[in-house]
Amino acid sequence: MANHYSRIGLLAKRGDDRIRAVLGHLARAVAARGATLTVETETARDAGLELPQAPLEALAERSDLLLCVGGDGTLLAAARACAPRGVPVAGFNAGRLGFLTDLALDPSDHSKIGLALAAILEGRGIAESRDLLQADVERADKSRHAGGVALNDAVIQKRDAGRMIELTTKVDGRFVCTHRADGLVVATPTGSTAYALSCGGPILHPSLDALALVPICPHTLSDRPIVVGGGSTIEVALATGFSGVAQLTLDGQVRLAVLPGDRVTVRKAAQPLTLLHPPGHDYFEVLRTKLHWGLGNGNDNDR
Amino acid sequence: MANHYSRIGLLAKRGDDRIRAVLGHLARAVAARGATLTVETETARDAGLELPQAPLEALAERSDLLLCVGGDGTLLAAARACAPRGVPVAGFNAGRLGFLTDLALDPSDHSKIGLALAAILEGRGIAESRDLLQADVERADKSRHAGGVALNDAVIQKRDAGRMIELTTKVDGRFVCTHRADGLVVATPTGSTAYALSCGGPILHPSLDALALVPICPHTLSDRPIVVGGGSTIEVALATGFSGVAQLTLDGQVRLAVLPGDRVTVRKAAQPLTLLHPPGHDYFEVLRTKLHWGLGNGNDNDR
Amino acid sequence: MANHYSRIGLLAKRGDDRIRAVLGHLARAVAARGATLTVETETARDAGLELPQAPLEALAERSDLLLCVGGDGTLLAAARACAPRGVPVAGFNAGRLGFLTDLALDPSDHSKIGLALAAILEGRGIAESRDLLQADVERADKSRHAGGVALNDAVIQKRDAGRMIELTTKVDGRFVCTHRADGLVVATPTGSTAYALSCGGPILHPSLDALALVPICPHTLSDRPIVVGGGSTIEVALATGFSGVAQLTLDGQVRLAVLPGDRVTVRKAAQPLTLLHPPGHDYFEVLRTKLHWGLGNGNDNDR
Amino acid sequence: MANHYSRIGLLAKRGDDRIRAVLGHLARAVAARGATLTVETETARDAGLELPQAPLEALAERSDLLLCVGGDGTLLAAARACAPRGVPVAGFNAGRLGFLTDLALDPSDHSKIGLALAAILEGRGIAESRDLLQADVERADKSRHAGGVALNDAVIQKRDAGRMIELTTKVDGRFVCTHRADGLVVATPTGSTAYALSCGGPILHPSLDALALVPICPHTLSDRPIVVGGGSTIEVALATGFSGVAQLTLDGQVRLAVLPGDRVTVRKAAQPLTLLHPPGHDYFEVLRTKLHWGLGNGNDNDR
Repeated sequence: MANHYSRIGLLAKRGDDRIRAVLGHLARAVAARGATLTVETETARDAGLELPQAPLEALAERSDLLLCVGGDGTLLAAARACAPRGVPVAGFNAGRLGFLTDLALDPSDHSKIGLALAAILEGRGIAESRDLLQADVERADKSRHAGGVALNDAVIQKRDAGRMIELTTKVDGRFVCTHRADGLVVATPTGSTAYALSCGGPILHPSLDALALVPICPHTLSDRPIVVGGGSTIEVALATGFSGVAQLTLDGQVRLAVLPGDRVTVRKAAQPLTLLHPPGHDYFEVLRTKLHWGLGNGNDNDR
Repeated sequence: MANHYSRIGLLAKRGDDRIRAVLGHLARAVAARGATLTVETETARDAGLELPQAPLEALAERSDLLLCVGGDGTLLAAARACAPRGVPVAGFNAGRLGFLTDLALDPSDHSKIGLALAAILEGRGIAESRDLLQADVERADKSRHAGGVALNDAVIQKRDAGRMIELTTKVDGRFVCTHRADGLVVATPTGSTAYALSCGGPILHPSLDALALVPICPHTLSDRPIVVGGGSTIEVALATGFSGVAQLTLDGQVRLAVLPGDRVTVRKAAQPLTLLHPPGHDYFEVLRTKLHWGLGNGNDNDR
Repeated sequence: MANHYSRIGLLAKRGDDRIRAVLGHLARAVAARGATLTVETETARDAGLELPQAPLEALAERSDLLLCVGGDGTLLAAARACAPRGVPVAGFNAGRLGFLTDLALDPSDHSKIGLALAAILEGRGIAESRDLLQADVERADKSRHAGGVALNDAVIQKRDAGRMIELTTKVDGRFVCTHRADGLVVATPTGSTAYALSCGGPILHPSLDALALVPICPHTLSDRPIVVGGGSTIEVALATGFSGVAQLTLDGQVRLAVLPGDRVTVRKAAQPLTLLHPPGHDYFEVLRTKLHWGLGNGNDNDR
Repeated sequence: MANHYSRIGLLAKRGDDRIRAVLGHLARAVAARGATLTVETETARDAGLELPQAPLEALAERSDLLLCVGGDGTLLAAARACAPRGVPVAGFNAGRLGFLTDLALDPSDHSKIGLALAAILEGRGIAESRDLLQADVERADKSRHAGGVALNDAVIQKRDAGRMIELTTKVDGRFVCTHRADGLVVATPTGSTAYALSCGGPILHPSLDALALVPICPHTLSDRPIVVGGGSTIEVALATGFSGVAQLTLDGQVRLAVLPGDRVTVRKAAQPLTLLHPPGHDYFEVLRTKLHWGLGNGNDNDR
């Protein structure tokens, strides 16, 4: 079968021996199919791959498909570079299934690496559209600061350990409430199984056009997660009279300080990510595996 | 301003002195506006109203608007009768705000009763469409049993105290997991603030086209609420090898036994309910009031 | 080494092939050590063991040690018979670790069965004292009804699906609160990893002299688990004006109906259970294994 | 009735007009009873009180009773100064009940201020012993750093927003587990209704000799709160291979950085705090008030 994609980019997690071990095989399999391969600069150095190289942003620019090898963290970086350019991403793992990296590369079986790659290059992967978030901060002086995009979540949280913050939240201009909490997570369906889940948020099916607002360790016990429409504009600010400082993180990376008078705006980014899954992909199967459903917990009470 | 609705039905909670006290005023206010009023049979008897009467189903059939006075429970009954007939429902309370009964009737101020009524009759209420659920049971012998409709939730739960049940769940034909739990709640956005919230489910904004699947006291601690698209078909059955019996309840009323081999199907009902809110209605304001946000909890730690 | 125990009783879970397979080996190992063995009547029939038999209560009466093979459910029954008579119980499993049955019988390795048994018979097991609960119901007519004893929990819960109950709780005569909920669990430290954990309760270390009061799906979101001293007397009654019926279950078995006007009293039983663990027993290791700690959950976010 | 206490100290929250308004009345009431009053230096300056002054530590040294006016935060400071010296503390509030400041000073009723004070000075308050925690850090080079004492909690938590930490925990030398989380709270019964409650921990009755270990937003969903005996020694360290930094806070104040190789030890402090409550004090009544029990939440479902 002919290739559906011909200009291939490669990004991988660094510092992982298992991953280094499969990258060479993956590169040869791409070459064997007659497609061109460019490797992200740091990836090439880490794995000792002598192939054309480019930094991530430039790599996304010149590729029509990005292969991403690692865990979900590596894929988050790939998503931020590829989504704005409409470049699909296929996530591979070298042994440990990820929510986003669900194509398995078995280091002990090179023929399987070729088969997994063939399915993707031939366009037989299951394409899924995943929304990203765009977060910006408007200061009291009306200056605007772009926070960037996130695939999982935008989090406004306390900066100083031991001190709760007070946040006021609006959805589409309507006041929701004042949270006294460690912070607030705004999560996409993709991010609903990441940090938001640890904070007590629900799992949102990826097909859902929705965002979850999940307070972190809220003082008021009835301050529970709220799910709103995906087209909503979320505004978050420090409550009037609260003198502390907060931070805005996107996919777990600190981007901006949030000061009294600042207004953080979170909404869907203009461009979604196209994520390629293996043929036969089943979201619930990934969920069962990642969350260890079926293993049980606690006493058996098998009376 | 002219009446937008002219054939008015009235249903009220029984056995409540505060409500009885306002029904007469409400009836006179309807008459004063030149609209016809028919009262649900039991309501008329309980309140001693000497007006044309009809049982609930017949009342819904002949009305172009149903006034419902009581708590959310009364409105659930009204919804099941009115939604299939496309009759809008306006929910009034006599002192205690409900999520669904958010038009206040102040017994001590008759002029306000007239104003609240006028807004609704003149068509100035805010109309909102709320989905209902339809639940059916298919037995092992392929016989089908209609469970009925629900505005809040369809719940499949244990019948015998002290014994957990095992349920398998499918969404649109795809296996989700086997729950070992006291049961499973399938909730609409409307129901997300009812029983599902007590079970740890998220709040779903009413505008969201979604359903929440919320396990009740699950054995596996990672068995968490999942939100899926509103168009999903949910199938629930007792797990193979599990010998107990479960029950299907709709809006808290037991409808059918669920036996080994049965398959319960839950999906959106064909007809949504049209719910009328007061002018200026704000969902988040109702949420703040009902959930006591802003009151705080626990230590102050005002350091 | 000489036997510390000489009159041995044996109780096992029925209907489990793996367990039947090890019972003969276990019986021969007891005989080989020169101790006498009596088998619980139903166990003997199920496993086809031709040895002296007795019903559970009589068996406990004549033994100085009870061997219990199965899951935690089987051990709960053993505990209720043995604790009042001061007979220690050793819990064996045939493959799947239980919180209470933590002595492993490997069907494929008979020598290990002998070693596990030897440790216990020689008195090298780690003896731990576990409190049981005693629950009684006093009716409005002052008649008293003994509910019996429980190792895990006493639960007062709704009987009719779909209908929440209202319970008032007192601790040592002091009013705690009115719970609107599916019910209330009173759990020992042993039971804290059973049903109470599914209801959101904490894990109580077995050495703690404490009881946990855990509401089941409470209506009020700030109605959280409370841990009180082990010497406390807990009283639970249906709230005044609530007309429904509840049930009292002990270790998951329905014992008594709870009617309006009834008062359920739960306190520690006079006699604790002596539970024998294998040498080297480590509670936290069992916890890690049973709760799958270390496996992770959700996104990796390996950024 | 004669005074039980004669050398009285006074500490109050600063910057609160309601509190400033009652301090003068309180001071005059102490003088009227013939007891001596010394005021904490900052308190005296803030309220404009011209009375003998001393810094908090010196004040605790020379008093046989400390009156503390404010919220629970002010009392936490009082506790840390008074507990080591065996000086009892009475906590007053100027309108808003605190868990620890449950003696009400009504600014509009001076006679009640005198009555509340008389009960305490005459020794009619209910004395309760509350344990404090002592936390220390031992560095890799064996140097020891005292963190200080806390009445509520010792928290080891992430320092850098957006990055989870990995902590290993031991109880009395036994390994419990590795937490991947935002941190871990070690709470006294007093602190169980403070930050630990927001993190999902249970309420521990003040009479309980116990500590709660509550993970903050744990990655593993079965990583649940554990309650251990009050005499336990808790050790917490960053997991091997984890390269980040954590912080130790006591009662919400940052005390020490926690570096790779450090070992934080938390145990009960040598001296408990004696806390004086008003005559008739009822812990559960405070709990009901602070947690708004009885107000309900969510849909009424009054069917």
